[in-house]
This record gives sequence, structure tokens and C-alpha cells, in this order.
Amino acid sequence: MAKTERALIVLAHPDPRSYTAALKDVAVKALRERGVEVMVSDLYAMGFDPVAGPGDVTERLSTENFNLALEQGHALEKGALAADIVAEQDKVRAADLVIFQFPMWWFGFPAILKGWIDRVLSYKFAYGVGQWWDKGPFADKKAMLAITTGTPAGAYAPDGRNGDIERILWSTEAGVLAICGFQVLPAFVAYGAPWIGDAGRAKQKEAYRALLSRVDEIEPKSFHALAEFGDDLRLKPEVEPRTAGQHRG
Amino acid sequence: MAKTERALIVLAHPDPRSYTAALKDVAVKALRERGVEVMVSDLYAMGFDPVAGPGDVTERLSTENFNLALEQGHALEKGALAADIVAEQDKVRAADLVIFQFPMWWFGFPAILKGWIDRVLSYKFAYGVGQWWDKGPFADKKAMLAITTGTPAGAYAPDGRNGDIERILWSTEAGVLAICGFQVLPAFVAYGAPWIGDAGRAKQKEAYRALLSRVDEIEPKSFHALAEFGDDLRLKPEVEPRTAGQHRG
Repeated sequence: MAKTERALIVLAHPDPRSYTAALKDVAVKALRERGVEVMVSDLYAMGFDPVAGPGDVTERLSTENFNLALEQGHALEKGALAADIVAEQDKVRAADLVIFQFPMWWFGFPAILKGWIDRVLSYKFAYGVGQWWDKGPFADKKAMLAITTGTPAGAYAPDGRNGDIERILWSTEAGVLAICGFQVLPAFVAYGAPWIGDAGRAKQKEAYRALLSRVDEIEPKSFHALAEFGDDLRLKPEVEPRTAGQHRG
Repeated sequence: MAKTERALIVLAHPDPRSYTAALKDVAVKALRERGVEVMVSDLYAMGFDPVAGPGDVTERLSTENFNLALEQGHALEKGALAADIVAEQDKVRAADLVIFQFPMWWFGFPAILKGWIDRVLSYKFAYGVGQWWDKGPFADKKAMLAITTGTPAGAYAPDGRNGDIERILWSTEAGVLAICGFQVLPAFVAYGAPWIGDAGRAKQKEAYRALLSRVDEIEPKSFHALAEFGDDLRLKPEVEPRTAGQHRG
């Protein structure tokens, strides 16, 4: 597998002294020790605006309606995307690894990070007609979720109170990362951070450091290729479902 | 089942002339025809701030760290939550049905709506210690997702390109609604809106109207009760998993 040269860490936590921020520091250090150039987008520190809308473009395709994807695609081609979006897209272009570091809020991203996705991963940049999944624009990049949870690990077991972590992550790992083509490295989940004490957190940090110290050896998760689906957008009859997300109904 | 008296529709779309907004109008009309009092929080029109953080509270529990849940709980008790949060919480308190009307962006909520959830559904308002799932504060309320998708229905079939819609919705229906106690009505999903023409959209609107005209008869989805989980947060051995989200590993 290709050596990771440049990484982007997108960080979303309101507190710079949080455990989430500390894990970001672990990642920065572990990657730099491997000679990886690391960029960090600290969304709270940047005051990043997460609300996708007319402010995202300086030139409109339609003044009657606002269709986000169509306006994004038009603005990208005209060089009319807002400056804060362009700056983030430049970082994604430069990176061959993108790590999303965040606390799990309501089984998903904090809004500021969801808005980074809504605005930065724009039409014709992160996806296009027929440019999805393995044919997506980021097929030569890797991405990984790095998550802290307030609830202990048991809740995320297959029979856990919150449900199988794999099920919870489908909407982000498949629906944000794999769909743009990213090779998805299995999420690093630091479970139950408030309940495990300093020793528990130190152990998680060490596990994270060790993981990233061999980042180029991690096997990406498997998703179906675009060509395995028919015109009806369903798996072709001869294809055996092999993800947790797709099964014969 | 109890008759719905007051509904809150939380709307998230940047374009007031969008199909999403038109579906909101259908819902308002159908509910009012039943004598339901309808409140609408149009998040884009309100300029709702979706970024949870220190600005959410006017009095801090800790000036050293910012733990969102703990600060939310403290501020709620001290009457020190930001005014925009209090206004939304008052609407939720008054409502016995909450509908979230939004376009599916990246398999999830637009950021402005995710931020409404992060900020409004605060600790000690929407959940508390031991107040989750069927023991959650909203156990006498119903909630429903009403979604538009750009991608046709086939993609959301169990063997579809985006994966089973039930899997995609777990992180919101379970992780946001059921976990606060809401009785979760099955999502209304208007699939493939851009591809179905005016006639197709008219049919979807009529289906939505018809659904809401009998809203009190809709059977909520089933989730496990809190008491069915052990201290390890996993289903007790004698409990048979009965949701799509939980299974024996």
C-alpha cells in the first residue's frame, strides 16, 4: 500500500482541553514521527460556519431556487465557492489520509463537523454523476473516523443498548466516506471515556498511537463496487452481498 | 392511542420554495384539518445557530473545562440556557408530536438540524441518568422523520447501493428519537424527488397527507425497554433481540 505522505485531521470539539483534543495530539505526534505532514482543521477554533446555503457561492446558477448540489457544482466550475470552502477543499486535495476526530453526539457527528461535510464535500468535488463509491474522486485517499463516546463499550456491542457500532457507523462510513471513494480504515473508537479513569484513557491513547504508527498497513473496510449494482441501483443477481449494510430483502 | 393535540415541525432546508418546504405545507394543512395546533421551527428562516458550545449557557459549571452535557444540565437547573434553546425547548414541551422535515444529506441531517438536536435536546431536558429509551422524558410524545432523498428508492432497498434505509435511519430513529423516549413513527421517505416529475411528487404529497390524516392510528416502531438490558448494557440472556439494530454477536 502507498505510504501516507500528508494527513488532514478535522477536529470537532468545543473544548481545546478535551480528551478528544488530546487524542488529536496523539495522532499528530504519531503521524509526524512517521514523517507524515499533518494539517489540522480545528473547526471550533476556526469558527467554522456549518450552515450550507446561498452563502456558499458567490455566483448563482438559479436566482429562483437554491438546489445545493447544483449550485455547488456550478460554483466550483466558475471558481465561485466561498473562500472558507475552497481552503478546506485544498487541504483535502493535498491529503492522502483524512481523519475525523470527534465526540459521538446522538450517534453521529457534532453539527459543526456535519456542516463541514455538507459544505466542503461538494458536488463535482467529492462526487459527480457516476463518480461514487470505488469510482469516487477520492479513491486514492484513505479516511478514518476517530471517535470518543460517553457510553461504555458494552452499549455498542451487537446486543448492546445503543445497538451494534457497525450499524451506527454505516451512515457515516458508507454514506460520507466510501461514497466519495475514500478507502475507509476501520474507526478508532475510544469508548466510555468518562468512566475509565486516567489509566484507561492512557491505554486508549497508546492504542491509538500504536494504530497510527502502522497506518499504511491497516486493511480498509470492504464496500461493493459501483459495477456490482444494476440500473435499478440494486446488487446484480449474481453478486453476493458482503457488507453489513446490504443484504437480500 | 391518545389524540395528537399539538405538533411541532422542525424544518431544515435553505430554500423556502423547495420540495421539502412544500411537504411541510402538506403536513401543516393535514394536521390542522384534524384540529391539531401546529408550530413550525423553520431553522434556516430563523437563522438558527447549530454550534453547541460555551455560548449555550450564560452561567458556567466549570471555567476550566467545557463538558457539553454537564454544562447543559447545570444551566437548565439554573435557568441559564441561551434564549434560543429555551424557546425551542418550550415548543417541544408543548408538543405531543414532533416531525423533523429535511432533505437527506450524506445519509443524515443537514447540519443546522443536527445542531438543533445537539443544543435543544440537552441533558436533563431530553435525557438524564436512567432516563433513556422507554424511561426517557418524552415517553408520552411521538416523533417522526419526514425525509426527501435525491437518490431513487432502489438505492435504499436492503440490497441497494446506499444500503437498507432501516440501517441508515438507526442512528437517528434510535440514537436521537427513541433514546429520549419518543414513540417513533415510521419515517415518511419521499424518494428520488428530482427524478419523478410533478406527477410523482403530487403522488408523494398525497401519500403524506393521507398518512398524517390518520396520524393517531400509526403504530410506533418497537425498541427494547431499558429494563431488558443488564448492568453490562447488553440484552439480558433471556431477552430475544427484536429490533433491526440489536442481535446476538
